[in-house]
Amino acid sequence: MMEPRRVIIGECWARDGLQNERLIVPTKLKVEMIDALQDAGFKEIEVTSFASPKTLPQFADAEEVLSSIQQKPGVNFRAIVTNLKGMERAVAAKQKGLKIDEIAMVISASEAHNIANVNMTHKENLLQLESMCKMALANGFKILGWVLTSFGCPITGEVPMEKVLWFGHWWLSQGATWVGFGDTTGMANPKQVKRFYSRVREEGFQPEQVIVHFHDTRGSGIANNVAALEEGMIYFDCSVGGIGGQPATGSPLYHYGYAGNTCTEDLVWLFEQMGVKTGIDLNKLMAVGLRAESILGRKLRSNTVRCYAEKPG
Amino acid sequence: MMEPRRVIIGECWARDGLQNERLIVPTKLKVEMIDALQDAGFKEIEVTSFASPKTLPQFADAEEVLSSIQQKPGVNFRAIVTNLKGMERAVAAKQKGLKIDEIAMVISASEAHNIANVNMTHKENLLQLESMCKMALANGFKILGWVLTSFGCPITGEVPMEKVLWFGHWWLSQGATWVGFGDTTGMANPKQVKRFYSRVREEGFQPEQVIVHFHDTRGSGIANNVAALEEGMIYFDCSVGGIGGQPATGSPLYHYGYAGNTCTEDLVWLFEQMGVKTGIDLNKLMAVGLRAESILGRKLRSNTVRCYAEKPG
Repeated sequence: MMEPRRVIIGECWARDGLQNERLIVPTKLKVEMIDALQDAGFKEIEVTSFASPKTLPQFADAEEVLSSIQQKPGVNFRAIVTNLKGMERAVAAKQKGLKIDEIAMVISASEAHNIANVNMTHKENLLQLESMCKMALANGFKILGWVLTSFGCPITGEVPMEKVLWFGHWWLSQGATWVGFGDTTGMANPKQVKRFYSRVREEGFQPEQVIVHFHDTRGSGIANNVAALEEGMIYFDCSVGGIGGQPATGSPLYHYGYAGNTCTEDLVWLFEQMGVKTGIDLNKLMAVGLRAESILGRKLRSNTVRCYAEKPG
Repeated sequence: MMEPRRVIIGECWARDGLQNERLIVPTKLKVEMIDALQDAGFKEIEVTSFASPKTLPQFADAEEVLSSIQQKPGVNFRAIVTNLKGMERAVAAKQKGLKIDEIAMVISASEAHNIANVNMTHKENLLQLESMCKMALANGFKILGWVLTSFGCPITGEVPMEKVLWFGHWWLSQGATWVGFGDTTGMANPKQVKRFYSRVREEGFQPEQVIVHFHDTRGSGIANNVAALEEGMIYFDCSVGGIGGQPATGSPLYHYGYAGNTCTEDLVWLFEQMGVKTGIDLNKLMAVGLRAESILGRKLRSNTVRCYAEKPG
C-alpha cells in the first residue's frame, strides 16, 4: 500500500466545531475565520448548518454567513442539512446566489443512534434522504453522505462493518460524490481503522470518494487518522482547536466526557512532518488557531499552537 | 511484522511526570500513587530520581519514598541517576535495603543538547557513564540507558539515526538491560518512528531490550507509540495524566509550548481496544488518573479519564 503524498483537509470549525459551543459566535467572526482558513490554504470548508435555529441557535445566521463570505477560487463550501426544511432553506439560499457547493446529510449506521438523533427508523430516514438527495442534485449541489457511528455506537456498542458499508454504498447509489464515515463518539482504534479502510478499498470505494472523520473523545483521533492515511485514504476532516464533534449540550446524545474533532493544527503539522502535503501554510494555520482561542475566550486543544505561541523570538 | 499481543507499560508519573510540577508532592501521596499503580497492575514503575535536591527539590525525598513503598511481587522499581553523586546515593540506599531494581542514566544523541543538559561533551559524559555503569552493575542494579533526542533535537534539529543507534549499542556494551530511545521534546512522527524501529530490529536490538518513550508536545504521542507497536516494540513509557516530560521550569532546556509524556490512561485504553494486553485494570487506572488530578489540583490531559469520570451511573 503506497501512502498518499498529498491529502485534502476538510475544515469543520465553523460548523461541527461550533455546534457544541455555548457562545453564539458573531457572524462577522465566523466570516473572518472562514476567510482566514481559505487564506491558509484550505480548499474544503464546512461553513454552516441549516439545522433549525431553535435546535441550534449557533446557526441561525446560516444565510448571513453565506452571503458575507468571499469564496476564493478552488475552494468549496459545505453546509449540513438534517431535514427537508433545511434542504428547502439550502435550495432557496442557492437560488439567491449564495455560495454553497456541497450538502452534507447524515444517517447513523446504528438504528438506535439514528432514532435518538433524528427520531426516525432507518426505513423512514432512507425514504426522506432519498427525496432530499434528489432535491440536492436537481439544484446543482454535490452530496456528502455521512454514515454516523461507523466505528461504534455509544448506545449499542459494536456496529457491524457490513451495515456501515451498506450505507456507504447506498449514499453512492443516491448520487453522493463523497461518503463520510464518522467516528461519532471517538470509539475507533487504529487496528479497527486499518481493517475498515482496507475493506472500504476492497469494496470498490475510491479514496477520492471517502471522507475520514475521527473524533478525539479518547485521545486517539490523530492515531486513527494516521491509520486511515496508511490505508490510502486522502481526505481528512478536522476542526481548529479540536473543538466540537458532538450534539449540543442538552441533546439526548450528548456524550459524557470530552468529545472533540481531531485538531486541525496538530493533524496538519504531523502530516507535513511525514512528508504528506496538505497545501496548508503552517504559520497561517497557527495564527488561525490562536485567533480561534481569542474568539472563544479560552485555550483550545492544539498542542502545536501552544508550541508556536510560546516559542521565543 | 506480527504486532505484539502483550506489552509492558513503564509508568513514569512519580519521576518524569512530577519533574516539572511546581507543587512539591508530599511523600505520602507519592507513595499512595505508587501503591495504587502497582494495584492497577503496573510492573515497571519509575519511582524517583537521585538528582541533586537543589536542582530538583521534588525528589529531595527519594530515600524516604523508597523506604515507604511496599513492593508487590513481580514489580520493578526504577530510579534515575544523572551523576556520580546520585549513583553514590542510589548505592547507599540499596545497601540500606531500600527497593530499587533499575537505574536509569541518560545521554543525549545530540551533543549540543547533552552540553546544555549535563554540561559535558559526549566524550566526557561517556567516560563518567562508564564508571557509573560499573558501579551500578557491581551493586546489583539493572541498567536502563537513555538516548535522549533520539527523534530530533530542539537545539540542532535533525539527529542522524546512525548516531542514535551508536549510543544504543554503547549502552548494551556497558551491560545495560534496556536501551530507551527518548523523543525528548516530542518531535517524532509515525513515519519516522517506523523507519527508526525497523532499523532498530535490523541492528539486532531485541524488542525486550528497547523502551519506547514518546512525549506528546505536539499531540502525536499516541500515534507514535502505535507506530512503534506496529514495528514490534513491546515496552512503552508513559505518565498518568500525560504530565511531565521536560526539564524543570528555569532549565535552559525548558521547552516552549506544552510538553508532556504520553498519557498512560489513553495509551493503555487504546492498546486494550486494539487487543493488545497491558495487564492493567482499566477501572483502577481511571481511578488513579482521577486521584492524580486531585493531588495536583487540576484537570490533567487524559481524555479517557474525562469519559470515565463523567459517565452517568
